[in-house]
Amino acid sequence: DFLNALEEVKPLFGVAEEELGKCIRGDIIHYSEFINDILEEGRLYINQVRKPNSTPVLSVALHGPPGSGKTALAAKMAIDSGFPFIKLVSPEDMVGFSEMQKVQQLDKTFRDAYKSTLSVIVIDNIEMLVDWVPIGPRFSNTVLVALKVLLGKQPPKDRRLLIFATTTERSVLTQLDLFSRFDAEIAVPNVNDPAELGRVLERFPAFSDIESRRKALREIKDITSSDEIGVGIKKILTGIETAQQDQDVPGRFARVIAQAIAARSAFA
Amino acid sequence: DFLNALEEVKPLFGVAEEELGKCIRGDIIHYSEFINDILEEGRLYINQVRKPNSTPVLSVALHGPPGSGKTALAAKMAIDSGFPFIKLVSPEDMVGFSEMQKVQQLDKTFRDAYKSTLSVIVIDNIEMLVDWVPIGPRFSNTVLVALKVLLGKQPPKDRRLLIFATTTERSVLTQLDLFSRFDAEIAVPNVNDPAELGRVLERFPAFSDIESRRKALREIKDITSSDEIGVGIKKILTGIETAQQDQDVPGRFARVIAQAIAARSAFA
Amino acid sequence: DFLNALEEVKPLFGVAEEELGKCIRGDIIHYSEFINDILEEGRLYINQVRKPNSTPVLSVALHGPPGSGKTALAAKMAIDSGFPFIKLVSPEDMVGFSEMQKVQQLDKTFRDAYKSTLSVIVIDNIEMLVDWVPIGPRFSNTVLVALKVLLGKQPPKDRRLLIFATTTERSVLTQLDLFSRFDAEIAVPNVNDPAELGRVLERFPAFSDIESRRKALREIKDITSSDEIGVGIKKILTGIETAQQDQDVPGRFARVIAQAIAARSAFA
Amino acid sequence: DFLNALEEVKPLFGVAEEELGKCIRGDIIHYSEFINDILEEGRLYINQVRKPNSTPVLSVALHGPPGSGKTALAAKMAIDSGFPFIKLVSPEDMVGFSEMQKVQQLDKTFRDAYKSTLSVIVIDNIEMLVDWVPIGPRFSNTVLVALKVLLGKQPPKDRRLLIFATTTERSVLTQLDLFSRFDAEIAVPNVNDPAELGRVLERFPAFSDIESRRKALREIKDITSSDEIGVGIKKILTGIETAQQDQDVPGRFARVIAQAIAARSAFA
Amino acid sequence: DFLNALEEVKPLFGVAEEELGKCIRGDIIHYSEFINDILEEGRLYINQVRKPNSTPVLSVALHGPPGSGKTALAAKMAIDSGFPFIKLVSPEDMVGFSEMQKVQQLDKTFRDAYKSTLSVIVIDNIEMLVDWVPIGPRFSNTVLVALKVLLGKQPPKDRRLLIFATTTERSVLTQLDLFSRFDAEIAVPNVNDPAELGRVLERFPAFSDIESRRKALREIKDITSSDEIGVGIKKILTGIETAQQDQDVPGRFARVIAQAIAARSAFA
Amino acid sequence: DFLNALEEVKPLFGVAEEELGKCIRGDIIHYSEFINDILEEGRLYINQVRKPNSTPVLSVALHGPPGSGKTALAAKMAIDSGFPFIKLVSPEDMVGFSEMQKVQQLDKTFRDAYKSTLSVIVIDNIEMLVDWVPIGPRFSNTVLVALKVLLGKQPPKDRRLLIFATTTERSVLTQLDLFSRFDAEIAVPNVNDPAELGRVLERFPAFSDIESRRKALREIKDITSSDEIGVGIKKILTGIETAQQDQDVPGRFARVIAQAIAARSAFA
Ligand SMILES: Nc1ncnc2c1ncn2[C@@H]1O[C@H](COP(=O)(O)OP(=O)(O)OP(=O)(O)O)[C@@H](O)[C@H]1O
Ligand SMILES: Nc1ncnc2c1ncn2[C@@H]1O[C@H](COP(=O)(O)OP(=O)(O)OP(=O)(O)O)[C@@H](O)[C@H]1O
Ligand SMILES: Nc1ncnc2c1ncn2[C@@H]1O[C@H](COP(=O)(O)OP(=O)(O)OP(=O)(O)O)[C@@H](O)[C@H]1O
Ligand SMILES: Nc1ncnc2c1ncn2[C@@H]1O[C@H](COP(=O)(O)OP(=O)(O)OP(=O)(O)O)[C@@H](O)[C@H]1O
Ligand SMILES: Nc1ncnc2c1ncn2[C@@H]1O[C@H](COP(=O)(O)OP(=O)(O)OP(=O)(O)O)[C@@H](O)[C@H]1O
Ligand SMILES: Nc1ncnc2c1ncn2[C@@H]1O[C@H](COP(=O)(O)OP(=O)(O)OP(=O)(O)O)[C@@H](O)[C@H]1O
Ligand SMILES: [Mg+2]
Ligand SMILES: [Mg+2]
Ligand SMILES: [Mg+2]
Ligand SMILES: [Mg+2]
Ligand SMILES: [Mg+2]
Ligand SMILES: [Mg+2]
Repeated sequence: DFLNALEEVKPLFGVAEEELGKCIRGDIIHYSEFINDILEEGRLYINQVRKPNSTPVLSVALHGPPGSGKTALAAKMAIDSGFPFIKLVSPEDMVGFSEMQKVQQLDKTFRDAYKSTLSVIVIDNIEMLVDWVPIGPRFSNTVLVALKVLLGKQPPKDRRLLIFATTTERSVLTQLDLFSRFDAEIAVPNVNDPAELGRVLERFPAFSDIESRRKALREIKDITSSDEIGVGIKKILTGIETAQQDQDVPGRFARVIAQAIAARSAFA
Repeated sequence: DFLNALEEVKPLFGVAEEELGKCIRGDIIHYSEFINDILEEGRLYINQVRKPNSTPVLSVALHGPPGSGKTALAAKMAIDSGFPFIKLVSPEDMVGFSEMQKVQQLDKTFRDAYKSTLSVIVIDNIEMLVDWVPIGPRFSNTVLVALKVLLGKQPPKDRRLLIFATTTERSVLTQLDLFSRFDAEIAVPNVNDPAELGRVLERFPAFSDIESRRKALREIKDITSSDEIGVGIKKILTGIETAQQDQDVPGRFARVIAQAIAARSAFA
Repeated sequence: DFLNALEEVKPLFGVAEEELGKCIRGDIIHYSEFINDILEEGRLYINQVRKPNSTPVLSVALHGPPGSGKTALAAKMAIDSGFPFIKLVSPEDMVGFSEMQKVQQLDKTFRDAYKSTLSVIVIDNIEMLVDWVPIGPRFSNTVLVALKVLLGKQPPKDRRLLIFATTTERSVLTQLDLFSRFDAEIAVPNVNDPAELGRVLERFPAFSDIESRRKALREIKDITSSDEIGVGIKKILTGIETAQQDQDVPGRFARVIAQAIAARSAFA
Repeated sequence: DFLNALEEVKPLFGVAEEELGKCIRGDIIHYSEFINDILEEGRLYINQVRKPNSTPVLSVALHGPPGSGKTALAAKMAIDSGFPFIKLVSPEDMVGFSEMQKVQQLDKTFRDAYKSTLSVIVIDNIEMLVDWVPIGPRFSNTVLVALKVLLGKQPPKDRRLLIFATTTERSVLTQLDLFSRFDAEIAVPNVNDPAELGRVLERFPAFSDIESRRKALREIKDITSSDEIGVGIKKILTGIETAQQDQDVPGRFARVIAQAIAARSAFA
Repeated sequence: DFLNALEEVKPLFGVAEEELGKCIRGDIIHYSEFINDILEEGRLYINQVRKPNSTPVLSVALHGPPGSGKTALAAKMAIDSGFPFIKLVSPEDMVGFSEMQKVQQLDKTFRDAYKSTLSVIVIDNIEMLVDWVPIGPRFSNTVLVALKVLLGKQPPKDRRLLIFATTTERSVLTQLDLFSRFDAEIAVPNVNDPAELGRVLERFPAFSDIESRRKALREIKDITSSDEIGVGIKKILTGIETAQQDQDVPGRFARVIAQAIAARSAFA
Repeated sequence: DFLNALEEVKPLFGVAEEELGKCIRGDIIHYSEFINDILEEGRLYINQVRKPNSTPVLSVALHGPPGSGKTALAAKMAIDSGFPFIKLVSPEDMVGFSEMQKVQQLDKTFRDAYKSTLSVIVIDNIEMLVDWVPIGPRFSNTVLVALKVLLGKQPPKDRRLLIFATTTERSVLTQLDLFSRFDAEIAVPNVNDPAELGRVLERFPAFSDIESRRKALREIKDITSSDEIGVGIKKILTGIETAQQDQDVPGRFARVIAQAIAARSAFA
């Protein structure tokens, strides 16, 4: 039976690591000291769970604006834990699942985790997992209640589990009475000012030249008449790529970022 | 048939006790005299049901804030009754069940209980059992009506049943017209003031030194500018563990508890 | 065929009587002259249906506050009719039934009744049978319409049927346009004043002594500052039992009843 | 094929006549000249449909307060038409049917009718057929749309169909946009004044004596302080029966009728 | 394959023509010059579709009050087109169909049409096809979206399709965002004034005498105190028939029409 | 396996190209410089995706008024990319699909695309794909969430995907929190002024003569008293065809366009 259980757990682990690796394209850029703080906070919770006789289950919510790097950071923490069982639960792998199939998938993941002494589960995009849509509002009650229950469920004796969950919708989860079920929370910020943005840009050949960075930042300021950026790292990375197709790289980059800044304000 | 029935009941009992035991990690800490009152009240109802010719069914609702110890206290009372049939009904064991499957599980538990002369059923997290979600609001009408009916149902002749139920949502149950179906209620409080919190802390090696306790309490007061605590025993126990990972144990503990206090106020 | 039909009806009758008997624990206590009036009214309707060539179907709604004795009184009237077919339809026996199964059960009961010349059907807790929940509000439209139709349906030639139904929710049934389908209604009151309460208490050994009754009534008045009681006979009987576990029987009884009075006012 | 069709139609007819007969207990009492007008109006529509080359489908709605005699009058008209196909469609025969089963039953009845050259279909309690419930409001959209379509559907060549429908909910049918689909309407009144009520009473031995009638009418006026009656003939007939169980027949009758008058006003 | 396709199309055509013919009882009466304009407009769209290389799909909505002749006019246009494929899609033929069955029927009709080079589809009572009910409001989203998609769908190469749809609910279709999907619209009026009504009446033997027409028109004016008629041709034709059963033909006709006028105002 | 995969991809490609070609009847008319800008913008995104090591998935929303040419332009861009996998996902091909079938079709299309190194998927009429209906509002939550997830899903290593989606309902997609999932957006305008309209007309023989164009434009201005046009290219092309059936081609064209202008204002 032991061997059997082992076999069931092993491949899950392998698959998960590759999957999680895919979430960190390139690498984590330390464009601000907050990035370090976040990773440090993650290590603290990993150590708490690692201690024998500690709380058998601990859950941490990573929340922040779209594209701010939540999934990449959660994946990084999970991989760095070195726990024997690591698994990503993502709506991407549940397209076309019925509510019940989602719940069963969740339930299975937790039951698999309980077979290992130390486990990490990353639940990505939790508001999408419950099919949240702001109009109505509508969501899957079935999946929501299952998540609530699983977050609080005691693992069997001598099994310990750490849960990371990501969401752009902290206030929605609060309304759904789901957020308070987490033991801790970590806020993931946007790239918020020109200095931070500059630190991102300097990693890319197209902006290795300081003049091109200055030009880009100046043009953004010209268009937005402000020093605030407030755009997620993901959009910035895509914007750099789009700009590279244009002849005027800094100009195009500035326009793309300015549009992203405007789009965000439209909702604020 | 008798032997058959016996066999069906026996294993249920064994399983239940272990399950209920799991609900009391460490032990019940008597941090306030209310804890004793609550356990005393429980004994009174157990004695009432034990009396031959008494009401054949009696139901008691334990309500209180999240993590205040409701499940642990209900489990303690149930185990201490020494009744031959003890069973925990929990949403944790019904993840992925359809409404009908939940109702059938409930119905089966009650029918099993009726086979024993004296039984206790603990229904945990009753608002989650009915899939309550505040937005909408939504809940499972089917499970709700089943609970209403089962709470009032007369056991067969010479069978007597005590029901403990736990909930964080007393007012929700009232709106659902479920709360008034209980024969009695027991309120379970938070750890409410520094003195009570101190009495919890002194049980742990990391706070065995009076200075460390004072430091923790002082820092909490500094952050919150108040003497009110109002945090459930469960969060406090987890907070102690988290703090132990930090170098500044009392400081970290104070920050965790202060955050919990703040989170609670946000909803008040 | 006749024998066949006979056989189908016989066992139903036996079962029903036992079931109905279970609804009258102890006995009907005549704590007020209204109790007699109610039973008398019941006899009148029984006689009307018994008359050949009378209305072939007559329906009577017993309504009143929770625990006021509706089910016990309906059961008493049904048993006293001596009609050859007597049947209790109760939500308690339909836990886990789908809407359609409930309707089929109802339909079957009526079709069984039509096989006997004179029948009584007691439909208990009619608002629970339609899965009424105040939030929403929600209820089973399917069961509701079936009840409406069955209340007005003409039995076959030479068959006559009396229907007693109980409910705590007269106004709800009115909103559902169900109440007006009944041919007559009987209001069942609470135990409303100290004199009536005294008449209940004197039946119990623990209160056989007049002083203990006076003490209980006095303490209730002290707590509530009023002479109004307004509590159902059922809660009073349970309260007497709870009190008997305490050393101070009248004191405990007073507290239990005072709490019941307070709970009721909270909704008024 | 013709013989086959004939056979299918014949038994339907027989059953229907018996069923319709059951709707007219005792007989139609001509307590007011309106009764004659109503029956006359019915004959006119029957003649219209009977004419070759006339509108192949004609629908008439009989509406009026509960128990005013709608079903009995529609049944009378249908039977008196002497048409070869007569059929009653009633919610009473569809208890426990799904929406789809109801629609199929309706559809089948119409298709059966199209097999006969001249047909009458009586659709009883049309608002109950669509599962109308005022709270929500809720109703079966599926059945409603089927009725709308069937009311306007052209029969095959040389087949003519008359539809009578009864309802207590004229305004509901109007809201549902169903009422306007009828080609004509007939209002069925209550028994509205003491003279009309007297004419009903004089048919019954218990009131053959003029004094007993006067006493009953006088007592009603005493209780209600008014000359308005406004009660359906059905409730009056049941009231006479109830009264006959009492020693004071006119007094009891007056109380029953006064209560019916009061109940009606409560909703006005 | 070609022969096979041909066979599939042929019988459809035959059936359709008979069905469409049934929609025009008697004939189209030219009581106003608008009738000609409408038919002319229809011919223009037919010619447009007939042209090779024209828009492969064209849709025209006929809207107007109940009974104004929409179905008859659409049927007339379709038959007069002489296109090889003509088909009527009507809710009458879908009683008891599920939403999916309706959509499949619609889809099949369009796919059948695409097999012919030139086709006309008449979709009758489009608001009933989507199960529109004003309370709620409710309707079949599934059928609605299917209609939207089919109205805009490009036929295969060298196939051209003309769609006529009828509705009494232009504003409803607009709200449902369905109306704007039509390429053109044709308004069908009521019979609006005494002159037009006279032109209808003179076609019937019972009103061949000018005096009888004058009498009818005068009495209508007396009852309604107005010269406005505003009644659909269909109700007028039925009214003539009803009147013929009465001894006073013009008087009865006037009362029927006056009632129709009143009913219409009640909603205006 | 490789050969197998190839075979699966090939036919998909062939079918898709033909399908997409059907979306561009006649050709793209360059009536304004915006048309060129739009196509240029499309090429830029195609180049971005083509770059190795670029963002593996890029999504672009084409939005604009009904009939403005969104589908044709998206099809043009897709075909011009020359990517080995091109596929159109359209509600037209999903008539009668259940929500789940739609999701499975979408999922399959994406999984097919992931088999090719470079792919374009065109998702047409995205608001119709989610069954959007403004009343309620109603839409398919299941399809919506699937789209959200698929737009953000990372393709496997070394596979890159470009998504074009079209919609008339930009603000609806924003409310549904779908619009912000796109990496970029392209606005498609109406034909907005007489000069642009003239440039469209001059392509058609019926308007080759400058006088006929002037006449048409003048008459439109006469009817609408304005120089604004604001009509989609699709309606204009259909209008030209309708006009050609009339003797007065420019006059008829003017009336059709004026009606389209009026219809649009009615909603503004
Ligand atoms: N400091 C950083 N933190 C997080 N991600 C970073 C950082 N530096 C670079 N990245 C890269 O930025 C991308 C962040 O995207 P990611 O999907 O994690 O964002 P997200 O917040 O989960 O987005 P969404 O809201 O769409 O779920 C990743 O590709 C990651 O490798
Ligand atoms: N006095 C006490 N009362 C209750 N629980 C205590 C007490 N002292 C220590 N505990 C421990 O505190 C924890 C209380 O957690 P428990 O799950 O019972 O809380 P809860 O109120 O049921 O939480 P939830 O609202 O999440 O259901 C248990 O581990 C229990 O062993
Ligand atoms: N006068 C009385 N009338 C009714 N019940 C009485 C009376 N005296 C004693 N009883 C006892 O009181 C109890 C009344 O409970 P019962 O279940 O009939 O109340 P109920 O009104 O039906 O309650 P619920 O509202 O919960 O359905 C029964 O056990 C019955 O034997
Ligand atoms: N003049 C009358 N008109 C109608 N019914 C009469 C008349 N005189 C006597 N009756 C009797 O009165 C009863 C009327 O009941 P009926 O069921 O027809 O009323 P209803 O209006 O259909 O009631 P409901 O609103 O409950 O459907 C029948 O038993 C019928 O025989
Ligand atoms: N000028 C006319 N236009 C239309 N119908 C006419 C005309 N003259 C006579 N008729 C007859 O009037 C009837 C019109 O009925 P029809 O069913 O077409 O109306 P409708 O508007 O479709 O009604 P509904 O709103 O109920 O669908 C047909 O029987 C048709 O033969
Ligand atoms: N400059 C242009 N841009 C787009 N389409 C054009 C242009 N010139 C001509 N066309 C033609 O106009 C038609 C535009 O129709 P299309 O279906 O693409 O519009 P749409 O905006 O997708 O409409 P809908 O809102 O109904 O989806 C096509 O037949 C296309 O060939
Ligand atoms: Mg993410
Ligand atoms: Mg608990
Ligand atoms: Mg009861
Ligand atoms: Mg009736
Ligand atoms: Mg029509
Ligand atoms: Mg398009």
